[in-house]
Amino acid sequence: MYSLTVADHVMVAHSFKGEGFGPAQRVHGATFVVEAEFRAPRLDDANLLVDIAAARVELRRILDGFDYHNLDDLPVFAGRNTSTEFLCFHVHGLLCAALAAGKLGAGGKDVQSVKVLLRESPVAWAAYEAPVPGLASA
Amino acid sequence: MYSLTVADHVMVAHSFKGEGFGPAQRVHGATFVVEAEFRAPRLDDANLLVDIAAARVELRRILDGFDYHNLDDLPVFAGRNTSTEFLCFHVHGLLCAALAAGKLGAGGKDVQSVKVLLRESPVAWAAYEAPVPGLASA
Amino acid sequence: MYSLTVADHVMVAHSFKGEGFGPAQRVHGATFVVEAEFRAPRLDDANLLVDIAAARVELRRILDGFDYHNLDDLPVFAGRNTSTEFLCFHVHGLLCAALAAGKLGAGGKDVQSVKVLLRESPVAWAAYEAPVPGLASA
Amino acid sequence: MYSLTVADHVMVAHSFKGEGFGPAQRVHGATFVVEAEFRAPRLDDANLLVDIAAARVELRRILDGFDYHNLDDLPVFAGRNTSTEFLCFHVHGLLCAALAAGKLGAGGKDVQSVKVLLRESPVAWAAYEAPVPGLASA
Amino acid sequence: MYSLTVADHVMVAHSFKGEGFGPAQRVHGATFVVEAEFRAPRLDDANLLVDIAAARVELRRILDGFDYHNLDDLPVFAGRNTSTEFLCFHVHGLLCAALAAGKLGAGGKDVQSVKVLLRESPVAWAAYEAPVPGLASA
Amino acid sequence: MYSLTVADHVMVAHSFKGEGFGPAQRVHGATFVVEAEFRAPRLDDANLLVDIAAARVELRRILDGFDYHNLDDLPVFAGRNTSTEFLCFHVHGLLCAALAAGKLGAGGKDVQSVKVLLRESPVAWAAYEAPVPGLASA
Repeated sequence: MYSLTVADHVMVAHSFKGEGFGPAQRVHGATFVVEAEFRAPRLDDANLLVDIAAARVELRRILDGFDYHNLDDLPVFAGRNTSTEFLCFHVHGLLCAALAAGKLGAGGKDVQSVKVLLRESPVAWAAYEAPVPGLASA
Repeated sequence: MYSLTVADHVMVAHSFKGEGFGPAQRVHGATFVVEAEFRAPRLDDANLLVDIAAARVELRRILDGFDYHNLDDLPVFAGRNTSTEFLCFHVHGLLCAALAAGKLGAGGKDVQSVKVLLRESPVAWAAYEAPVPGLASA
Repeated sequence: MYSLTVADHVMVAHSFKGEGFGPAQRVHGATFVVEAEFRAPRLDDANLLVDIAAARVELRRILDGFDYHNLDDLPVFAGRNTSTEFLCFHVHGLLCAALAAGKLGAGGKDVQSVKVLLRESPVAWAAYEAPVPGLASA
Repeated sequence: MYSLTVADHVMVAHSFKGEGFGPAQRVHGATFVVEAEFRAPRLDDANLLVDIAAARVELRRILDGFDYHNLDDLPVFAGRNTSTEFLCFHVHGLLCAALAAGKLGAGGKDVQSVKVLLRESPVAWAAYEAPVPGLASA
Repeated sequence: MYSLTVADHVMVAHSFKGEGFGPAQRVHGATFVVEAEFRAPRLDDANLLVDIAAARVELRRILDGFDYHNLDDLPVFAGRNTSTEFLCFHVHGLLCAALAAGKLGAGGKDVQSVKVLLRESPVAWAAYEAPVPGLASA
Repeated sequence: MYSLTVADHVMVAHSFKGEGFGPAQRVHGATFVVEAEFRAPRLDDANLLVDIAAARVELRRILDGFDYHNLDDLPVFAGRNTSTEFLCFHVHGLLCAALAAGKLGAGGKDVQSVKVLLRESPVAWAAYEAPVPGLASA
């Protein structure tokens, strides 16, 4: 299995609901380093999995949807705790939609699964990985 | 599959038995950066896999068992070569026991597998990953 | 010249005032990795500049003053843009006060200057360095 | 499952053929950090997966085959786009051959799969992982 | 003294002239991570040294002058060994020119010195630092 | 001012004498990442400060003097607390001696000062910097 990963980052604010969150119930923030990994069993004729430049552009476009925001104010996150785990799931869904829409080029058609990893600090990170929906053979 | 990872480090001495180890037969040492990854197929109602703060406390408690020691002097390691691989296995067992004892909270009950990775230098690291013992469905 | 550096991190929210800040005028956030460097021309009898454990405790105590907060809500930052540069200056002042109060032990008495560096993302960081106030010979 | 990873790096030039590559059609270059991960279900009597020193020597020997070269000039890469993904595949094949030849010692006989990861920049990397050919039980 | 640093990277090919360079006499390549540090004794009214966004844009513009090229083919480097040290000096000159041209905004007028650091591998990097030419008081 | 830095690492054991050291009075260990920085006001005719390959060889030779040892057992450290700060000073002295002996080549003759930095963990490091002894104009 091949994989290709691109990375970027966002700087966001948010707060958590629930006594168990302690000080994280206050509005605080994070620089999330975001790593998007695409997996495919074969390369295209040019020996690429997906084009790195295209992948970086698409990841950036997705991150622009919430970068430099207080996530508590965004309708897409209403009523949800925007934990690092959940944000991985959120970005994963948008990347799969981009793949389905052909935005990652011809190479993207062989991508079977995607993993999104967010680093919130030097000592904590989370990830979500799952097959690309609609694939017959993943 | 979701994953949540926390990291910490220990500073230990040890030596290896066996001619093949060359200079590592002498008492020497290492800063091991320890990464503990918990994997679960779903998040809890608060969108957490396990609480990061609880995971960091539990990992720290386990590492305190051998941090700042010469591993050659600890009964728990008697007669064993404390290779990086083996130390991963050792920490893995203690983390699974902590999960079984409920020390990582309600979120921990969905953890299916654990991976422990130890970095011994910028150019070498090892890991051990396995299902949490006793799980019916991992 | 010797130096000794300890590192920690905070996760905070804030916003900036001024059209030039663009999207950073919105409440957003950052994980700041904080590096505190102490400089001295000599070591003490135990070959230490300052005790690492004491330095980490003191840095942590200072960071607890604004970690997991929206800096816009803290009186100490009222009317100030909490840029990365300014936060370096802020932490620098508190560390120098701690040194003056003897909180970093006997070793701290030879510290001539302090540098505080904050990393806001993988591609941007700032620092402030200055002599410890009140030193005759720095 | 256990894993053991060693890392090294190469500094190479190359160019890509195909309009889609844009500026990368020109001869340019990269420092590739190369991470070679060996996976095995058990350790040997000395608690090792493979000897780190032997693995570093073997990886270095393989990398010497193209380090400090323009890959466009090497017969082994003739007619191929030397993408990061493809270079992972190339190194993977050579490492598996080394394992089959016993160059990683007795420990190497339990290695079931190998993963090779190449980092081309702080924001992009690729990997190839596959079972060691000829294994009955991988 | 305050400092503000932004980072980016380039992927270039080049070769060195002189027997002492050994294998580096061949066309090879490097990913250079480029760190540009601006130093000033004070911040502006918005608590900024230079605007991070403007600094990143300007650094990117300068790096575009040789990114994805074989440096041996660029007239600006004709007859020069493009060592890491020399490339630091080259970028330093262009950044100082940008400062003099006001491209880093009002904040840039207090910048007294600039340091440019290029990382060529995990085990080697170089830097060049010097006052901004034409400053009366640096 | 130019600088050129090379990095390597050692894995050593040691213990500290003095009640203030707490658990570090026990034999423990560390992976020290060692960074050796050479500073010079000009480059040689080949645009080099010192040859990276030569610098790496010389640093390695120096580190071999205590790598994979218990520092408590080495005569050169008898009666000394081998703090991170002190080890920086120790390596600094040996590098300056190597420069004086011409082991870093012709380029080394312009080196005015050397800085040695040792990272003991992700959250603590120390350094020692000083002019090369015997220089008239440093």
